[in-house]
Amino acid sequence: MTVGKYIGIDLGGTKIAGVLADAGGTVLHREQVPTKAEEGPEKVVARVFGLIRVLLAAAGEGEVKGIGLCTPGPSDLKAGVVIEAPNLKWKDLPIIALLEKEFNLPSVLENDANAAAYGEYVYGAAKGRKDLVYLTVSTGIGGGIIVNGELVYGRNYSAGEAGHMIILPDGPLCSCGRRGCIEALASGSAIAREAKALLLKEGQGGPGRTGLLWEITGGDPERLTAKEVGEAAAKGDPLALSVLEKAFRYLGIAVGNLVNLLNPEIVVIGGGVAALGPLLFRPVVQAMEATAFAHMCRDLPVVPALLGGEAGTRGMVALARRKIPAEG
Amino acid sequence: MTVGKYIGIDLGGTKIAGVLADAGGTVLHREQVPTKAEEGPEKVVARVFGLIRVLLAAAGEGEVKGIGLCTPGPSDLKAGVVIEAPNLKWKDLPIIALLEKEFNLPSVLENDANAAAYGEYVYGAAKGRKDLVYLTVSTGIGGGIIVNGELVYGRNYSAGEAGHMIILPDGPLCSCGRRGCIEALASGSAIAREAKALLLKEGQGGPGRTGLLWEITGGDPERLTAKEVGEAAAKGDPLALSVLEKAFRYLGIAVGNLVNLLNPEIVVIGGGVAALGPLLFRPVVQAMEATAFAHMCRDLPVVPALLGGEAGTRGMVALARRKIPAEG
Repeated sequence: MTVGKYIGIDLGGTKIAGVLADAGGTVLHREQVPTKAEEGPEKVVARVFGLIRVLLAAAGEGEVKGIGLCTPGPSDLKAGVVIEAPNLKWKDLPIIALLEKEFNLPSVLENDANAAAYGEYVYGAAKGRKDLVYLTVSTGIGGGIIVNGELVYGRNYSAGEAGHMIILPDGPLCSCGRRGCIEALASGSAIAREAKALLLKEGQGGPGRTGLLWEITGGDPERLTAKEVGEAAAKGDPLALSVLEKAFRYLGIAVGNLVNLLNPEIVVIGGGVAALGPLLFRPVVQAMEATAFAHMCRDLPVVPALLGGEAGTRGMVALARRKIPAEG
Repeated sequence: MTVGKYIGIDLGGTKIAGVLADAGGTVLHREQVPTKAEEGPEKVVARVFGLIRVLLAAAGEGEVKGIGLCTPGPSDLKAGVVIEAPNLKWKDLPIIALLEKEFNLPSVLENDANAAAYGEYVYGAAKGRKDLVYLTVSTGIGGGIIVNGELVYGRNYSAGEAGHMIILPDGPLCSCGRRGCIEALASGSAIAREAKALLLKEGQGGPGRTGLLWEITGGDPERLTAKEVGEAAAKGDPLALSVLEKAFRYLGIAVGNLVNLLNPEIVVIGGGVAALGPLLFRPVVQAMEATAFAHMCRDLPVVPALLGGEAGTRGMVALARRKIPAEG
């Protein structure tokens, strides 16, 4: 039997998304507000509280049994403290204590990539599987690992940092300061950076200056985005295609490494860059199959995430429901 | 209370090792015979049976509650079938059915690297930890992953293939047919291959032909082993030192990737090459710290395996004891 309702909040650098769902996971209500991190931590916390109040009102008196919140960056999940979230300008913020004091409801904290992995596991592309690898490929690359139905946390609750798997030592510089992480090779930023470099290089009277991608940039490659590279590639632009192929070959090697290590039942890839569809999945699967053992790749689905922007909030509903008893 | 005794067998390409232990894991008796795989699967199975008979006799009538056996290569652990073990010349061999028929005792099959990881977890270097990565570095490189006290198996019971993590695409050829796996960069074979190549290259009147490593080979680098490279490095031979440093930098990057993914409490490294001690551990830790996030490396022990050649047999005792109830 499913009783009670739960609130799931996904606190990101640009927006705060929230859902109210019943214990079966059906979304009853959705709300969203901008994060405005630049206004400082107190204001962001107040905005989270405001969002929760709206969802509580929609639920009805006494209906909500718990709140789940996910945030980016390293946290002490056990203590409910966000250790450092540069996007939010948060540092050592005891958000769970604040939430429980404000609403007198049990609340749980989770990492955003883990929450999305759990959302896809319970309600999305990985429903019915128990061993899965989830990757989110957008500006950066994040990951969540589920083994035997449980999120892998590790000693510091920091496991799943797939985006910083180094597969090209001495490769391009990553946002983390290291070189050759897959985030530096296959993320949206990496794709934009590579395409830009090629346009500027080949633009010296070469093919870049006359190609579709050059046109899309309006002659100013500095503002180029991965989305535009994808658009040009979809229309057959050779420069854009070669950039994506190279990036996703690296991503596929990383997926192959994960397959060899974890032998999952399914690999789910979400995030903005995964919206490129076959332009991403075809080279990724090809490189994965060239990397991992054949019997582990055989009949292994490598699929797009299903929940889109709602993986985090719905994952938090599922995690809150699991960790907080409805009769509590 | 600990009752009953268990037999643990480690079936390798060159020898079959067996122990009899009490339920607390204390070894009561040890036996070992050569594998002689060239004589064919039936003879090897007969030799395993012979070894078990000796251990059963040492145990006393009715004392042994179960048998655990580990083998190299991919197996269907659930069905108790060794799918392919080239070293043993076994293919689709239902070893557990054969064992249970012969001895009328519950028996369990495990992969050898998993067994060694479990042995180190229960009795060895990782005792008291619940999240660990185990690597064995010898001719090849194998791995076992324990998350929350449980071996990670995955869909085909094939997880833990850390030796074939690719960290240098287009790097040297691996025994698996791919390029740039850590086995191709940091195993005993890789070290011997690299040193050989340098000796032959620099030997053209260069430093190689006059160095310590050249002397050790007696002027014939073809027979060079990783052990000899280690001996020369221990005596300060610059060529040997540079080969090891390069190999173990790659190994450390792989360890760093594993730390980022799994955030373990401890990393245990066993196998013949790990006997090089600080020559291995110093560059491995350095490269790991340059690869993984600081908070996951902080106070993270990266230590030699404690059980040596007995990790597999003792791991199988622990796994047999766990999977087979003593009162059964």
